Amino acid sequence: MKIVVDGFGGDNSPDEIVKGVALAIKKYSDLYVIITGDKDKLEELFDNYDIDKSRIEIVHTTEIIINDESPTEAIRGKKDSSLVVALNILKEREDVCGLVSAGSTGAVLTGAFMKIGRMKGVSRPALAPLLPTKNKGRVLLIDCGANMDSKPINLCHFALMGSAYMKNMFNIENPRVALLNVGVEDKKGNELCHQTFPLLKQLPINFVGNMEARDFLSGKYDVVVSDGFSGNVLLKASEGAIQTLMSILKNEIKARKMSMIGALFMKKSFKAVKKLMDYEQWGGSPFLGAKKILIKSHGSSFAPSILASIEQVIQINNDKLYDKIEKQIEETQDICEKLIENK
Amino acid sequence: MKIVVDGFGGDNSPDEIVKGVALAIKKYSDLYVIITGDKDKLEELFDNYDIDKSRIEIVHTTEIIINDESPTEAIRGKKDSSLVVALNILKEREDVCGLVSAGSTGAVLTGAFMKIGRMKGVSRPALAPLLPTKNKGRVLLIDCGANMDSKPINLCHFALMGSAYMKNMFNIENPRVALLNVGVEDKKGNELCHQTFPLLKQLPINFVGNMEARDFLSGKYDVVVSDGFSGNVLLKASEGAIQTLMSILKNEIKARKMSMIGALFMKKSFKAVKKLMDYEQWGGSPFLGAKKILIKSHGSSFAPSILASIEQVIQINNDKLYDKIEKQIEETQDICEKLIENK
Repeated sequence: MKIVVDGFGGDNSPDEIVKGVALAIKKYSDLYVIITGDKDKLEELFDNYDIDKSRIEIVHTTEIIINDESPTEAIRGKKDSSLVVALNILKEREDVCGLVSAGSTGAVLTGAFMKIGRMKGVSRPALAPLLPTKNKGRVLLIDCGANMDSKPINLCHFALMGSAYMKNMFNIENPRVALLNVGVEDKKGNELCHQTFPLLKQLPINFVGNMEARDFLSGKYDVVVSDGFSGNVLLKASEGAIQTLMSILKNEIKARKMSMIGALFMKKSFKAVKKLMDYEQWGGSPFLGAKKILIKSHGSSFAPSILASIEQVIQINNDKLYDKIEKQIEETQDICEKLIENK
Repeated sequence: MKIVVDGFGGDNSPDEIVKGVALAIKKYSDLYVIITGDKDKLEELFDNYDIDKSRIEIVHTTEIIINDESPTEAIRGKKDSSLVVALNILKEREDVCGLVSAGSTGAVLTGAFMKIGRMKGVSRPALAPLLPTKNKGRVLLIDCGANMDSKPINLCHFALMGSAYMKNMFNIENPRVALLNVGVEDKKGNELCHQTFPLLKQLPINFVGNMEARDFLSGKYDVVVSDGFSGNVLLKASEGAIQTLMSILKNEIKARKMSMIGALFMKKSFKAVKKLMDYEQWGGSPFLGAKKILIKSHGSSFAPSILASIEQVIQINNDKLYDKIEKQIEETQDICEKLIENK
């Protein structure tokens, strides 16, 4: 299996990207990785690892896209960047099944929209991160920011893709799919929710109704469907609130000697909480609905996250998940079209 | 000063509502409170307090609106409910300057829209809760759910009202107003953000640009402007994530004896964190832009929150805040209209 990795995307690139690739090459004997970036630097880094170098191909690039750049200008302008070259390899080489990048989300998504295109029948691809839940489970949020203004048909496709992803990746028989809303009652929400709710009810998924943002991490849902704007707010508000609480707690502990002693006793519990909340360990967010497999790894990814992202590509490919999604979208195309016409 | 209080709204009504009113009557010698609800029950509860009963008027009502009811049906159908009668008193009696209710948010907002109406020039009133920030400050979110599908002009009015509120209530010279978005860059966001951003830039407020949801509680902003749907997601996702983290931490402490000992040492710090995050202590959320002062107290309000909500009415009234907002809306009406025409 061949995978392409953006060697110079993310805060900890290229060191941690190379380390992640090395871990993957060691773990999977049938894996072949193409990595883009400065050849000399990459070769130097790979020399630190005792791995089968014949399964690594370095494609030399001279540019890097950074976070502050306009995604469209960066993709158009930096044709020899590690990301654009990686996207071209994914697009053009039939034997390459997927891409992993920890680069700027905007650039990765824009590049994917421009170069990779959509799966047949999918109205819009969507970025779908996994978050940890209260009961040590996980919930998939789709979309978290790839599409700013979504239509009901887009949300139907998000629901179908999200459900198929959770079913196949985690063996969940009947993933519970919810619609992000301001309350759980059927008629709550904005115009988009009003139009989408009855459509979701008629799809061949386990649609369990509306979800309030406060229940996102409750463990009651497997898939949360949302337009990209609200989904982004949901994701980042959750992350921000957790960081805020952690920082307040830290300050209040530091302000008291007794508490600092107490914190020493609690070290293991704090560590366990941190591990539970660390969703980067699971790899990145799949860009579901794109023509080929694309995993956006977190910008601050370390080697274990890169390895996990590569493993996501492997699992999606081995499970033929994209074929399954494409088939389901095709099977429900009539339903979707009829539902929307009848409105 | 005369205020009307919904005696039977909220999880802890009527006991905690009566206690809150009693505290207010004791604290403010010129306060007169009209309270709606079952007369016998309310009289019995007030008998527990040694206060000047001549400044309390009980208006007997026979119905109660509960959380699960459809707001519109409840307001239309339950004409003798404590909330509807309180709204009618606010509407009809000129000497009554404000209302406090801890009842169902939907019913309170619907009732306010139907019975109280808008301040002159305001396109839509909005619900504006205060949240605690990392640096022990506070941030106002406007709107958190009164308007599901908002227009750019609505968000302009939210910004003007929110800025005036923070300036007058907390003596903030130049409140920093931000627009909720998916990133800080000027051109980020959905169509509503694209249209609203340039309008906010031209208003006589300290508009500091777009805000990512993760920075909501960072203390960098005084007012966060949003459509009601995304604002609701922002508020509830923040609350939910904090509750989730607290519950995970609790479980991980309980799972280890050492940690439980450590937690005893940290009691004071945990208490301090809880106090910092407890925004109910500040009272309820003003429904800014309504014709008269209306404070929606949290559904689980205890007496101190009810007292704080009553104090909000007193301060808004004494500061003539609503006159100031009305004046500013009038002064900017030309700007707003021209900005929207020119688009």
